[in-house]
Amino acid sequence: MSGKHTIGIDLGGTNVKAGVLDAAGKLIHRTAIETQAGRGFDHVFGRLVRLVDELVAGAGLHKTDIAGIGFGTPGPMSHAEGIIYGAPNLPGWVNIPLRSRFSAATGLPVTLENDANAAAYGEFVAGAGRGTSDMVLLTLGTGIGGGIVMGGRLQRGKFDNAAEIGHTIVVANGRACPCGQRGCLERYSSANAVAERLAEALQDGEQSALRELVERGRKVTSVDVARAAKEGDALAARIWDEACLFLAIACVNIQHMVNPELILFTGGLIGAGAQLLEPVKSHFERQVWRISRDVPRIAFATLGDDAGLIGAAALARLEHGGLQYASPAGQSNASR
Amino acid sequence: MSGKHTIGIDLGGTNVKAGVLDAAGKLIHRTAIETQAGRGFDHVFGRLVRLVDELVAGAGLHKTDIAGIGFGTPGPMSHAEGIIYGAPNLPGWVNIPLRSRFSAATGLPVTLENDANAAAYGEFVAGAGRGTSDMVLLTLGTGIGGGIVMGGRLQRGKFDNAAEIGHTIVVANGRACPCGQRGCLERYSSANAVAERLAEALQDGEQSALRELVERGRKVTSVDVARAAKEGDALAARIWDEACLFLAIACVNIQHMVNPELILFTGGLIGAGAQLLEPVKSHFERQVWRISRDVPRIAFATLGDDAGLIGAAALARLEHGGLQYASPAGQSNASR
Repeated sequence: MSGKHTIGIDLGGTNVKAGVLDAAGKLIHRTAIETQAGRGFDHVFGRLVRLVDELVAGAGLHKTDIAGIGFGTPGPMSHAEGIIYGAPNLPGWVNIPLRSRFSAATGLPVTLENDANAAAYGEFVAGAGRGTSDMVLLTLGTGIGGGIVMGGRLQRGKFDNAAEIGHTIVVANGRACPCGQRGCLERYSSANAVAERLAEALQDGEQSALRELVERGRKVTSVDVARAAKEGDALAARIWDEACLFLAIACVNIQHMVNPELILFTGGLIGAGAQLLEPVKSHFERQVWRISRDVPRIAFATLGDDAGLIGAAALARLEHGGLQYASPAGQSNASR
Repeated sequence: MSGKHTIGIDLGGTNVKAGVLDAAGKLIHRTAIETQAGRGFDHVFGRLVRLVDELVAGAGLHKTDIAGIGFGTPGPMSHAEGIIYGAPNLPGWVNIPLRSRFSAATGLPVTLENDANAAAYGEFVAGAGRGTSDMVLLTLGTGIGGGIVMGGRLQRGKFDNAAEIGHTIVVANGRACPCGQRGCLERYSSANAVAERLAEALQDGEQSALRELVERGRKVTSVDVARAAKEGDALAARIWDEACLFLAIACVNIQHMVNPELILFTGGLIGAGAQLLEPVKSHFERQVWRISRDVPRIAFATLGDDAGLIGAAALARLEHGGLQYASPAGQSNASR
């Protein structure tokens, strides 16, 4: 271990968000650059290596002040092996041993993590999950991802694919999912699914105020559906409510599988605010059992876009040293 | 810590199974007594205290050889608090601080654990899960319970209710469950549910060879349904297949939530053998995603009735000392 600071990098298909955390886990410097993913692996890799130098300089530090780099990445990857198997929005990023290559290029220890796991860990150490020991984050965007903290530890499962909650099945033989399954949660409750279900219903001849919008050639978004539902459109209201119902059922299933004290939502869909949170909570209260008071709180995450880079940096700190986060819950658990 | 041996007790409404494990985790002595639950808490408690003395003597040991007692108990309880909140089949066992009371009565450290968690941990350290780091056990009996091991550790969740997999919802607004929910897994795939669904279908006028049996005044059991399904009875076959389908969907959901390498079944329903395991596996293969090879093996547990007491004793060893189990997977994980 050379330093007490850590760097967090949240690699996306469009942008890279990155920052430097001090020994207390505080984000002291942050930046964002375009990924320029279309220009291929070598180009992006070079940008990321230079980004590390810029972050260190921007924070007024030297490389020797940095204990490690945490990397949140999209798509199938292995934390244990340090490999990115592929990323739909990053052409050429196939079977890349990113941990060893980025470590060699920067001279710093590197930790790879699934981006939703990193975001969950970020909320756990520094966001809405601070002070808990058992929490789950759901990312409600194009798809639905997640991250699970149990007993104060990020839980990855055997194949580093735990918390793929968007692909838990909520309707047996339900809507087909590109993953090959049917009835996945993300086919009902993701931003994409909400928009698609409305477009499909219009094609089936159902009535909605949004038909006019489609006839003008505009693609329906989840924001349109939420707005139309609010304005009393029956079709939009039904689809929105079903999205909330299946999210509530997913929360019941998380409760009985993981038994967390807190379930957090983040991602584009939470822009709907109370129009999302209130019906999910009310469906949850109607759906969940009465025989135990082991009910998690359901709330929105608070770190927004910073969650991934903060969580990645915190995970790098866990593995590569520097001070630990002082989480009372985590400490009591570690001493068990 | 006084000794190297541990005692495991699996407390049931009808029988108590108990045994002594040596320092290597080997079961060197076992016994079973009637619970005599109907005679109330004090009576049963006294029997259990005497049982400890008999176990120690029966194994040719002294109390000073015992590092601790692990207690697997049914019904709502708290491992952290050491309290049994209630147990449907144990009249009078309400809000009992069993850990402190049993420890005071026996002079030995005591660990309380949910019985399904104890069984899962038993299979993990000494049964079909030996050598894994991430596994899930499902107990398929009157109801459906479970236990989750992730990263080599039993995972209890915040409220000690993790792995209540029988109450994950597999059918939105489905069959009513005594727990207050609708569509719980155990309303489709437990031994009770299979028998009940057939009885209900007969009442609804559906045809089945089992009607004759009911008309002779016999209650249909899951064994009857399995046998009739095997003999070509269409109604029994449909109900049995649906039980297997929903178990398979639960396995998909476990895969995406917990991402274990192994899912084990135990309990009465596994008496059906391949007639249960093969359709569950085949439904699972049809239901599960294609985009990652993170697929758990699905198999039967191997310790039978001993799993609970072995797991309880192993958990007592974890908390109260003695040698640790040498699980290669657990070790590598602990060093992360």
